[in-house]
Order: sequence, then C-alpha cells, then structure tokens
Amino acid sequence: MIIVLKPHTSEDNVNRVESLIKKRGLDTHIVRGAEMTIIGCIGDTTAIDAKLFEVDASVDKVMHVQEPYKLANRAFHPEDSIIDVSGVKVGGDHLALIAGPCSVESHDQVLEIAKAAKASGANLLRGGAFKPRTSPYSFQGLGMEGLDILCAVREEVGLPIVTELMSPDYLDVFNEKVDLIQIGARNMQNFDLLKQLGQLDRPILLKRGLNATYEEWIMSAEYIMASGNENVILCERGIRTFETYTRNTLDLQCIPVLKKKTHLPVIIDPSHAGGKWWLVEPMAKASVAAGADGLMVEVHNDPESALCDGAQSLKPSNYDQLLKQIKQIASVVGKIV
Amino acid sequence: MIIVLKPHTSEDNVNRVESLIKKRGLDTHIVRGAEMTIIGCIGDTTAIDAKLFEVDASVDKVMHVQEPYKLANRAFHPEDSIIDVSGVKVGGDHLALIAGPCSVESHDQVLEIAKAAKASGANLLRGGAFKPRTSPYSFQGLGMEGLDILCAVREEVGLPIVTELMSPDYLDVFNEKVDLIQIGARNMQNFDLLKQLGQLDRPILLKRGLNATYEEWIMSAEYIMASGNENVILCERGIRTFETYTRNTLDLQCIPVLKKKTHLPVIIDPSHAGGKWWLVEPMAKASVAAGADGLMVEVHNDPESALCDGAQSLKPSNYDQLLKQIKQIASVVGKIV
Amino acid sequence: MIIVLKPHTSEDNVNRVESLIKKRGLDTHIVRGAEMTIIGCIGDTTAIDAKLFEVDASVDKVMHVQEPYKLANRAFHPEDSIIDVSGVKVGGDHLALIAGPCSVESHDQVLEIAKAAKASGANLLRGGAFKPRTSPYSFQGLGMEGLDILCAVREEVGLPIVTELMSPDYLDVFNEKVDLIQIGARNMQNFDLLKQLGQLDRPILLKRGLNATYEEWIMSAEYIMASGNENVILCERGIRTFETYTRNTLDLQCIPVLKKKTHLPVIIDPSHAGGKWWLVEPMAKASVAAGADGLMVEVHNDPESALCDGAQSLKPSNYDQLLKQIKQIASVVGKIV
Amino acid sequence: MIIVLKPHTSEDNVNRVESLIKKRGLDTHIVRGAEMTIIGCIGDTTAIDAKLFEVDASVDKVMHVQEPYKLANRAFHPEDSIIDVSGVKVGGDHLALIAGPCSVESHDQVLEIAKAAKASGANLLRGGAFKPRTSPYSFQGLGMEGLDILCAVREEVGLPIVTELMSPDYLDVFNEKVDLIQIGARNMQNFDLLKQLGQLDRPILLKRGLNATYEEWIMSAEYIMASGNENVILCERGIRTFETYTRNTLDLQCIPVLKKKTHLPVIIDPSHAGGKWWLVEPMAKASVAAGADGLMVEVHNDPESALCDGAQSLKPSNYDQLLKQIKQIASVVGKIV
Repeated sequence: MIIVLKPHTSEDNVNRVESLIKKRGLDTHIVRGAEMTIIGCIGDTTAIDAKLFEVDASVDKVMHVQEPYKLANRAFHPEDSIIDVSGVKVGGDHLALIAGPCSVESHDQVLEIAKAAKASGANLLRGGAFKPRTSPYSFQGLGMEGLDILCAVREEVGLPIVTELMSPDYLDVFNEKVDLIQIGARNMQNFDLLKQLGQLDRPILLKRGLNATYEEWIMSAEYIMASGNENVILCERGIRTFETYTRNTLDLQCIPVLKKKTHLPVIIDPSHAGGKWWLVEPMAKASVAAGADGLMVEVHNDPESALCDGAQSLKPSNYDQLLKQIKQIASVVGKIV
Repeated sequence: MIIVLKPHTSEDNVNRVESLIKKRGLDTHIVRGAEMTIIGCIGDTTAIDAKLFEVDASVDKVMHVQEPYKLANRAFHPEDSIIDVSGVKVGGDHLALIAGPCSVESHDQVLEIAKAAKASGANLLRGGAFKPRTSPYSFQGLGMEGLDILCAVREEVGLPIVTELMSPDYLDVFNEKVDLIQIGARNMQNFDLLKQLGQLDRPILLKRGLNATYEEWIMSAEYIMASGNENVILCERGIRTFETYTRNTLDLQCIPVLKKKTHLPVIIDPSHAGGKWWLVEPMAKASVAAGADGLMVEVHNDPESALCDGAQSLKPSNYDQLLKQIKQIASVVGKIV
Repeated sequence: MIIVLKPHTSEDNVNRVESLIKKRGLDTHIVRGAEMTIIGCIGDTTAIDAKLFEVDASVDKVMHVQEPYKLANRAFHPEDSIIDVSGVKVGGDHLALIAGPCSVESHDQVLEIAKAAKASGANLLRGGAFKPRTSPYSFQGLGMEGLDILCAVREEVGLPIVTELMSPDYLDVFNEKVDLIQIGARNMQNFDLLKQLGQLDRPILLKRGLNATYEEWIMSAEYIMASGNENVILCERGIRTFETYTRNTLDLQCIPVLKKKTHLPVIIDPSHAGGKWWLVEPMAKASVAAGADGLMVEVHNDPESALCDGAQSLKPSNYDQLLKQIKQIASVVGKIV
Repeated sequence: MIIVLKPHTSEDNVNRVESLIKKRGLDTHIVRGAEMTIIGCIGDTTAIDAKLFEVDASVDKVMHVQEPYKLANRAFHPEDSIIDVSGVKVGGDHLALIAGPCSVESHDQVLEIAKAAKASGANLLRGGAFKPRTSPYSFQGLGMEGLDILCAVREEVGLPIVTELMSPDYLDVFNEKVDLIQIGARNMQNFDLLKQLGQLDRPILLKRGLNATYEEWIMSAEYIMASGNENVILCERGIRTFETYTRNTLDLQCIPVLKKKTHLPVIIDPSHAGGKWWLVEPMAKASVAAGADGLMVEVHNDPESALCDGAQSLKPSNYDQLLKQIKQIASVVGKIV
C-alpha cells in the first residue's frame, strides 16, 4: 500500500501518519520528493482498509499495490485448479460443456433435452428449479419438484447436474443432491450466503454480478474459499452496459484476465449474456477460442413454448452443429474434447 | 404489450402468433402497415414475460407499454405514502433526517453521536451492526452486540433506529428490535429475502442496487409489497459508472422519476455515493432541493479512527452546520422541518 | 509517478528500470519491501506517458500521483476564475442563467422567448444554429441564418448569446459574432478543434462528453488553455449509464469535484440530461443548491411544435416560476442573483 | 413508429394527436384498448424525430419500430459488402489482417515492422501519423512526416496503408495518399467531418465511439454513406464500462449483431480494447471465431521504447505465432486466409 501525502505536509504530520500506519502492524518507507511525500507500507495489507488512512487530513490518496485475495491468487497457486464435478473434470485442458433448459418444466422435457445434449457431447446438465425473477408475478420455477426431476434425469442419462441455489434454506438439500451448485449474478455479493457455501462439500459455480469488477468477483470466490470450500468455478454471463440491443455485454477479456490473476476455471454462459439465440453460436466459439474452460448453453426442445428465456435457447439440432465447430476450435487452442 | 412482426410475415403466421397471444389470456388488435404488421395486446400483461413471444420466428420485437408493477404504482395510488417509523413520519411534507456512524463500534461512540445528531435535528439514528464487506478479511461489524448497543442508545436518546439486515437468520430479531430495516444495495435483488420481508411488521428501507434501473428497483419494492408489507421507503446511494474519482455517481434524477412512478418516499444517502466527506454537504443540499423525502448521512465523532468508511463521515459540528442550510432549502421546496 | 516492480525482480532489472526513468528526466527513489520493490519518480511527470514504463517486463504497474493538468489546476490558481461573457460575469458569486430554445427556428420565436426569459431573470440567451444530430436525416439547424437571427435578437433584447460551434470552418465567424462559444459533448475530445479554440478571443463553454471522466474533461479544457485561451466554462449535461428511462444521468457530484480540482466555473444543463421537461425544475434547483455557477435551460414558447427537443423545454411561464425558487436557493448557498 | 397515449385520453385529444401525425406525412391506425389507446404510424418514419410527439400532453411514449438507417441496412442490401482497399478485399469470405505500430516513429521502424508483418501474413499496414491524445502535453505524432514515411514503406513493402484522419484540413491529402482512412473513436460523432468523408473516394474505417450504441455507430456510417461514400468498414475497439483493470471492454457480440443489421464489414482492434499485449492473442482468436472480417493489431519491433502504447503491442515473433492460430480458426469458420 502506498500513501501519498498532500503537498507541503509538515514533518510532524508525516510522523503522525507514519505512526498510524505502524499501529496497523505495517512497516513504512518514506520517499520525500520536491513536491510531495510518499509513504510505502510494507507488510501484509490484505486485511487493511485503505479508507482508514484516506480520512486523514494530511493524506491525499491511498493506492493498493497488493491484491486483496490470497486463496484464489495464482501468485500463490501457480497451477490451474482442476475441479472434480462428480467425475467430470473442469479446468486445465478439459472443456466443460453444460447444456439444458433455462427452467425445468417437466420430466419429459428435461429427459429429452438431456439425451440430445449428451449425444451431442455435453458432459453436464443444467436446469433451473428455483428461478430468480425480476418480477414477483413471473414464473418462479418448479422448486423442489424441479430439483427432483433433475435428479431423476441424472439417473436416467448419466450427466451430473448444475442448478441454482437462491436461499440458505436449501443449503442441505443442495449439498446432498446437486453436483455443481450455481450462485446467480444477483447473489454474487450475498456475503452471508457465500460464507455458508464454504461449509459445503460440493463445488460452486459462481456467476459474475452484472456490474462486478474482476476484483470483486474474485473476492466473492475468496469468501467461499476462506470459509472452507476451495472448489469454485467462475462463470461470466455478461455485464450491464449502456447497450440495450443485447440483454448484456459479454466480456470475454475476463478469460485471460482471470486466468492470469487466479487459478480457478472460467466458464462462459453466452445464452444469458446476449439474450438472443442467434448470438449464442458465435459467442460460444469465441469463448473457446479465447481459452474458456467451458460453456453453459441453454438448450430447449421447444423454445417457442418455453416458460422462461426461450428466446435465448438453442434447439438440440443447433446445439449439435455448434459442438462440432466447438470441438475443432478447442483442438486449435489445446483443449481436449 | 405491442408485438411487431417481421416484414413480409404471411397471413398464416400472423394468425398463429395471434393465437399464441390469446392463449395467454390477452385480446389482440392487428395493425397492418405497408411494411410491417403490429399486434397490440389488450389486457393485463403484468405477469406475462415478453420474451415468450420474442422467440417466435415471425416476431421482430416485443415492446412493453404497461408498467409491470401495481402496488407501488402511483397510477393506482395517487397520494404520497407516508410511512410511520415508530412515530417518525416519512414521506409527504416530512423530512427524514437519518444520521449516525457507518459501523457501531461501542456504546459510548453511538451515544455521543446520537446525542449530537439529535441536537442538530436528526430524527432517526443509523448504525451498522452487520456490515456487508467486499473482502472476507475486512471488519464485518459487531453483529448482535452492535444491535444491542443501538437498542440501548435508542432508549437513552429517544431516536428510532435504522440498521441493515443481511441474512434471513435474523428476520425475527430485526422485526422485534429494529424500527426501520435497511436492505443494502447488494441484496436489492435477493428475491428470497425480499419475499420474507413481506411477512414483517416493520417498514423497510430498500437501497438501490449499484446497477439497478428504476424499474428493477421498483419491482424489488413490489416484491416486498406483494408479499404483504407495503411500508417501503426507497433509498438512492449512488450507481456505478465509468467515473472512478468518486465511489459511485449519485443519481438525483431518481427523485422526480420515482415520485412520478410510485407513491413511496425517496431518501438519499450522499455519504456512500461519493465516498468523500466533502461531497456530502453539497449533495445533501441538492437532494433536498430536488424534493427528497429525507437524508441518510454518516456522522462520526472521530472519523480518523472509524473502523469503516471514516472518509465519508461528517463530524457532528459539520452535520450541525449542514442541517441549518438544509432547513432553509427544505422550506423553499415546501417541506416541514 | 510510482512504479511497482514485479515480485522478485533482480537487482539488475531494478537498475535497468531506474535508468529508463532517469532517461526521461526524472529522479528516482527506490523502496525495497519484503515482497516488492517500488520506485518513486520525482520531477514533472505531466508530459510523461505512464504506459511507456508499463510495457517493461519487470514492471507490475505504474500509478500516477500528480494531476496531469496545470493551467486548469486549482493547486496553481487558488481563486475562482470569473469569466467575462460580454459583460456578464460567470463564476465566483455570480449565477449565469442561460435560457433559450434548443434550435433557432425563426426570428419571432427567438425574440419572444428571449424577451420572456430576460423578464424572468435570464442573463444569457442560448439557441442552436448548427445542430449535432445522430441521424443525417434529422433537421440540422438553420446554420448561418440561425446565427444571424441570434445576433439580431441580441441587439433587440440585450442578452449576450451562446451557441454551438461544430466545425472549424466557422471559427472566424463565431469569434466575431458569438459571445460564448459552446462545444458540444460529442466534440469534447475533438482535439484538433480544441487546439484551434485556443486561438480565439471568446470564452468557451465546454460540455462534458457522455462518457468523459472528470480528468478527461479537465484535460480538454487544458487543451484550450494550453493553446492560449484560458476562458473556459465547464458544462455538465448528463452522462450515459445503463438507465434508459432518462436520456442521461445528471452527475451533480461533478460540481464540488470540479471546484476542488479546478478554478473554472461549472454550469449545469438539466434539459439535455433528463430529456423530459418535468425533470428540469427539480434538477435545476438541486444544481444551484450544490453550488453550480449557472444553469442552461431550454425554454420554448410552443414546445409541442418545436423542431427539436421540445419534450425537454420549459414554457416561459414555468421558467419564470423556476427562477423564483432558484433565487431563494441561490441566496441560501451564497450566490448573488 | 408507435405512439402510446396516456390512459383516459379523450376522443378529442386522440384526434388532435392523429392530425399531428398526419401533418408529418404518415398514415395512422388506432388501437383502442380497455386501458390505453395506441396509434400505429404507417409510412417512412426514418426522418421523423420521435421526440416531436413525446412533448404532447396526451402522449405517454413513442416507440420506434423501423430502423433509422437505410443505406447501411441489410434489409435493403442482403449481400455482404466487400470493400476494395487498393486491391485488398475486406468483407465476405476475406480476412483483413492489419498490422503495424501505434505511432509512426521513423522510416526504419515502420519498414522493419511492415516487412515482418507481411511475412507473417498481414495484408494491410497501419501506423499513426496524427495521434489523438488525451493530454496536450503528450506526443502528438509525426504528422505529415509520418504520413510520408507510411507512403514510402508502402512502396517498398507493397502493403496498402491505414492511418487516422483527425482534422478536415487534411481531407485532400488523405484522399490522395491513404488507402483506408481511419476515423477514431472520439470523432465517431464529429458529424461535420463525417459529411465531408462522404465526398472522398477512399474507403473509411469507422471506429466505434467509447460509449456508442450499435445504432449510433451505424448512423455514423449512414452519415458517410448518405453523403456519397458507401465504402465503410466498422471497427470495434472496446467500450467504456465500470471495469478498470482493462483499458476498455471488448464487445464481440457486436460482430453478429452488426452483421445481422448491416451489410458492412466488421473488424476488431483487440490492442486498444484491452491495453495489454497479453490480451491481444486470446481476443484476436475469439474475434475470428465470432466471425470478424479482420483484425487490426499493433505490432512493434521494440515495444519497450515505443513512443506510444507499447504496452499493448505485440512483437513480430508473437504476431507471427498468432497468425498461425488465426489461420486455423479462420478455416473452421469459413474464412479464406
């Protein structure tokens, strides 16, 4: 941490600030320039709130140098983390291909989609049982009934399941039944829930909040990891910008950035980002070309009748076509498919 | 809801789309132009997901006309709602003046601040007991101990208390002890929690999410109201933009917009928006001039030693000065102080 | 400027980076911590591109400490600049009240509006002759004919005129005829034009670009000032955010920030920001309460028939009402009206 | 265009609004619902400003249905436009590979880079002679001397040149000497310049503004096309968001969106978007996978000494490696390389 003092700060004030810093357990190194004085803080600043010093009348600004995360930090864990999702490896050279409907609607629906997706090459099955909806009047998902359908289809088709947890009330049942527990964008900073996820045995798929910076997103992973569960997979699903033609703007630069900063796998959800099915194919290919560790794609056998987000779902035949090209691109960038 | 069909849609397809609409319980009115056909949907579209129709191959776009909220809608409730917070009226001609430290640190601290704030004219006491922090390594608040301090100071000073609820685990205790329950920006779309707030008797202070549109924010209020608790106060605390010099950008246009769209009181928190204490005074005055129903301001007796957000806290003497000007501006715009 | 080296940078590399810095004319001061080495650069870094050092393989990041502007910087010019616009003072205790139609449509129209606005208290007349329009098919303004109308009305009514310059082709004619030359948001970083404005004798009203940071905006003022014209007034007109209900989001925090960072007057245009006439009144009052040095408000005698932006224009009677309240608020915050 | 009237609008007011619409040359079709009345406007609404109607006291909102652009619209020009840049085809199955230094620094520098880039497979040479810089104190480019260097290297190496035009003063010389004239992000809405580009014979590379919507960007292309020059290539270079770790956020969804909406080629500049050289490779691959018609990549033989933007430049050897993978991905998505 570097503390820049205001121009013409007196020697007394420099000493006072220095002693404030030392009280927090840090060493200091003072740089006196012609126009300003800078104090370099030496030691572990991870747990120190920079704003504590900003309030001082002699301090101009405080700049963080060290990253505030440790467990998620690639600097302390140079190899890629490879997360085991009930036998399916995510990260490293592996490519996770998650497919399924936005919402679980019926057993037949999920079964039909799951079979088709698996035949095309998908290795994980997604489906929403509890749905986060902007309106209290919209369809909120089948709830426990939906989860039971997913479990039944898992038995029949043999794909581990991914589904979203919205409430701490269901922590135990998800820990028992769900292979990969998804935390949605709107709960990315539900810190209380994050702490509780640290108690679970299941890997967590942590979606990026709509306006979360990379650092905030990694810090939310750090919350889960610091609470005891290091099996976190990051999932980009688009950020909110001024552009309104697409639902959100898909940020693929996150892939190389997160891979440089962390050791965690990074998966892309092109379905939610664009909100239009015809954007899924080009963005899925782009994601894999950029080095993504997986794709989460909505597939629906009858998008026109879907209860939720049909507009962004691929039909099984389109998904099948897509995976053919995905496999070719994956091999160019060194992924095993 | 208006559905615009793609150019050159065949008569068969027009009929097919029309029947899809009717299946959802709506009437239709078809406008045939030279270049395109438009279907006006007549009936209650509040609970209908526009995306259901967008997926149709003949549909170009779907545009909502009706607002998706009812209970919060001023159209159905023309008078200002005046919320009673343990005797303090919020809304209408009243001006809520909420003051207190970011975090509860000790009984003496809160007591000293509360007394000073009340002497200046504050009518509600704030203080964070449970703190949402981006980092798991930052100070997370005193928790229940902090809440007990607030309750004790309430007895001593006579100001109702406002504090943030982060977890459903504390719903009962907050309902028993807290006069105005604050929901933070990061939980604005924690839909599960919103539903549970509908079961409480206490009024709710609902902060705007950092990237929430006005409509999303109102829909979150609607969640609480539809679940049974109509006492919701909206609180703007800055939105995230590209500007980094300030913590967030305070959006004061929200005041006239929300007052046109809803009947709920609107309060401004200038402390969190700017993140710098010297921004609080001008923004507080601007808020009242723009018609805000109240201000939530961080006041700290010793900002340099604050455990959290000292940089944005006013000293009691500055708060006192501020309220003098606030009262003058309030009288210009017709508020009682 | 502070240069943070990567962990475990060798002594040779530290020396190499140090010599690169010295080659640019700066002195260095090296801080060696347990985990990282930091080089403080001492000297005038205004003209040095931080990215030059970022490219070095041993450099982790480069942080600017000094502000990159000098002429606009309040640190070197502590008093408020008061700009003389053909006799009307802008800045300090003065309140500029600019009013007029979005577009000049006819002599009668401008004359009627100007007379009414002046009677209400306006001291400057605005009107667009050359209009920046997103579409090539929209009305582009009356051009020179519009400028002649403004000049004629100035003679008749006695208000100095403000109008927008879009092309370097008209530099001479604007310099001769226009009292305050407006540069629109979309030209805020038309650097070539900014340099040419430095050659003029007239003061410049520099609008903020839709996505310009405070620093970029000040740097555009610095361009004009460094080219020879120090009479620059800054004008906020809303920034682009994710919110779509309003045309733009008005950022009133800019007022205290710019006044801290620069000595230039700051004016607010609430008409363009919100794009709705009923937002103008509360936002105008908020602007003055926050310390703005003036308001630029669109006034139209017949908004329903306006050729441009009628929806955001006040009728003369509303403008008159507004100024009554503005004067009261101005006196609370110490402005002379 | 669809005009939604306010609830309970009287028959007289409906008729009045209808006649306003007809005065603008449009036909109307009225839809009367239980709660609201909607007027569909039939005819060419491209040149009609929706805001003209919004101002009416009976109008609730105005929604555009038709796209406001014609010449750039794929609906009226279904085939891909293929632009000829002095013999190099851009668009359709072709892949433009533009490489070169950010700034022209010397003849030797440009020559060395151009030779290496051509050997790797580049087919167009870029280099900045006039540089748009945020600060008046930064290096502004070599100007005409830089342009002459580019022309000389073109003769020696045989690659057509791309360089940025910043001022109308140089229109003639660019038209004579430059094969593809680049318009930078900050001039995307310099409407006066856009109109003048319509008079030129050379194709234009139009970069997206940092906060431009797709529609605004296409409208800027439409300005050039409507003024007489239909040879426009669109270039995405990142948009501004809240994320600060990267310079800008690269929006690759623009590729499928623009290709659906327009017939113009779409090129991606991954160097400026991320601002870090190690982001270029993954983003370049992603761009081609998503269907881009070309890449504009900064290549520098000595990035550490570059006068501008060295941090985002690839070395020739890295560029060579990149093009090997690019060619493989291009063949998967059906581009000829």
